[in-house]
Amino acid sequence: MKNLGYYNGTYDELENMRIPMGDRVCFFGDGVYDATYSRNYNIFAVDEHIARFYNSAQFLQIHLPCTQEEMKALLCEMVSKMDTGNNFIYFQASRACDPVRNHTFSEDSKANIWINIYPKEILDIYKKVSLITMEDIRFYHCNIKTVNLIPAVMASQKAKEAGCFEAVFHRNGRVTECAHSNVHIFKDGCLITAPTDNLILPGIARKHIIKACGQLGIPVAERPYTLDELFDADEVMVSSAGALCLAAEKVDGRQVGGKAPDLLKKLQDTLLDEFISNTD
Amino acid sequence: MKNLGYYNGTYDELENMRIPMGDRVCFFGDGVYDATYSRNYNIFAVDEHIARFYNSAQFLQIHLPCTQEEMKALLCEMVSKMDTGNNFIYFQASRACDPVRNHTFSEDSKANIWINIYPKEILDIYKKVSLITMEDIRFYHCNIKTVNLIPAVMASQKAKEAGCFEAVFHRNGRVTECAHSNVHIFKDGCLITAPTDNLILPGIARKHIIKACGQLGIPVAERPYTLDELFDADEVMVSSAGALCLAAEKVDGRQVGGKAPDLLKKLQDTLLDEFISNTD
Repeated sequence: MKNLGYYNGTYDELENMRIPMGDRVCFFGDGVYDATYSRNYNIFAVDEHIARFYNSAQFLQIHLPCTQEEMKALLCEMVSKMDTGNNFIYFQASRACDPVRNHTFSEDSKANIWINIYPKEILDIYKKVSLITMEDIRFYHCNIKTVNLIPAVMASQKAKEAGCFEAVFHRNGRVTECAHSNVHIFKDGCLITAPTDNLILPGIARKHIIKACGQLGIPVAERPYTLDELFDADEVMVSSAGALCLAAEKVDGRQVGGKAPDLLKKLQDTLLDEFISNTD
Repeated sequence: MKNLGYYNGTYDELENMRIPMGDRVCFFGDGVYDATYSRNYNIFAVDEHIARFYNSAQFLQIHLPCTQEEMKALLCEMVSKMDTGNNFIYFQASRACDPVRNHTFSEDSKANIWINIYPKEILDIYKKVSLITMEDIRFYHCNIKTVNLIPAVMASQKAKEAGCFEAVFHRNGRVTECAHSNVHIFKDGCLITAPTDNLILPGIARKHIIKACGQLGIPVAERPYTLDELFDADEVMVSSAGALCLAAEKVDGRQVGGKAPDLLKKLQDTLLDEFISNTD
């Protein structure tokens, strides 16, 4: 298939897929998701993404209708139907379908499972990007990967309008993360990244960056850091499933980073090697 | 019809309605809504609800495909198809359908229009309710009526589990609103209600309460107030389209209000009279 949509056992090309209007995603955005990439029909870090997906669901008392192993088998089966092996793999669970709209829910309802797959490659890890900064106005459970994404949509749009790749959120000067990425800095040979509290998503790419730093002997500080530290950093990097570790050259139009290119390249090489060796 | 779902010109009974998986509501909750009630096939405060709906859309750069007058005519036409005249009238706009998931959007896309109508009566205005309190963890644009409602869903569920009607949100002790209602207090003959900033929805029922207070000579203070003031109030009232002005008798299991029953009844009578006379 050229692309694929899946909903509770039914699948077709995305443009033909329909879902029930009574799905709680329609009226409450009442769902969680996760996303990764496949290369050569192999899904990168699939177990980690599925584990986070189940974690997000559990936070919101969304009851998934299958085990993590079954979910993995389903994703692999759906990828195998694609015309190409390099794809964006998106999966989602919405809480339930309700006959009429009601904020409250039945505790014994089983979630609906959604999948979207279409050809897409991860971004060139060595490409430099520009960022803007923005006050973080999101809710206080950013550790849960929900589809309540209007603030991320509006911030991404503002970044796009400014000709930028991403928007860096901060709460009163404290950097949290970006609209759809985590953000990290290098300073004096050390990686500094915000801790995984309720203000940021525990990124899988972030985890791989920390692991790679360990392999490379780069010290890591998981601690809050400020916009001032970001502007003053040796390197500024954003990470996500599709942008494993892209360095920023500008933030709000000001030059940033560029002061630790060797360290940056070592990290990027390690991450890219891991992605490739795990999807060969 | 026993109930009605509408999507971009297609309508059917709710359980038969399907919507495209590519609608941005599915992956971002990227939509706004409004809701009111009909009685005798007359929609209460329809112009005010439509005006707020257009306002919410404008905040998020969602471009509605019709005028407010056309929207009103459409809602009236759909209500006229119902088997009964007393209904819940829900309408929604999602930003667009996108071929593939992308946070950013095209600025010239036209929104999809959704309607849900089913038989429902407003609640008995004289019934006393119980409430719980909860830290307000929502995003900082609660003045926009979006379908990013997971925090409202989770709070409503907690209230239900506690045997309560609603959850009162507060930010560090400052009362904002409830999960799906505004909340007000009477103290020393004066109505106190949180101001319409970005922390609360500018409720239509709230507006009618303020208008009724004007008619009754009751002074109104639109100012921040605290949980302590709520516990100490003469009366505590929640308001929404379906619960015009319900008094609370308990908050977090503690007795509240009950000290200004005559004032409360005068206000409730006035609001109910308005609802009935406007839908006769």
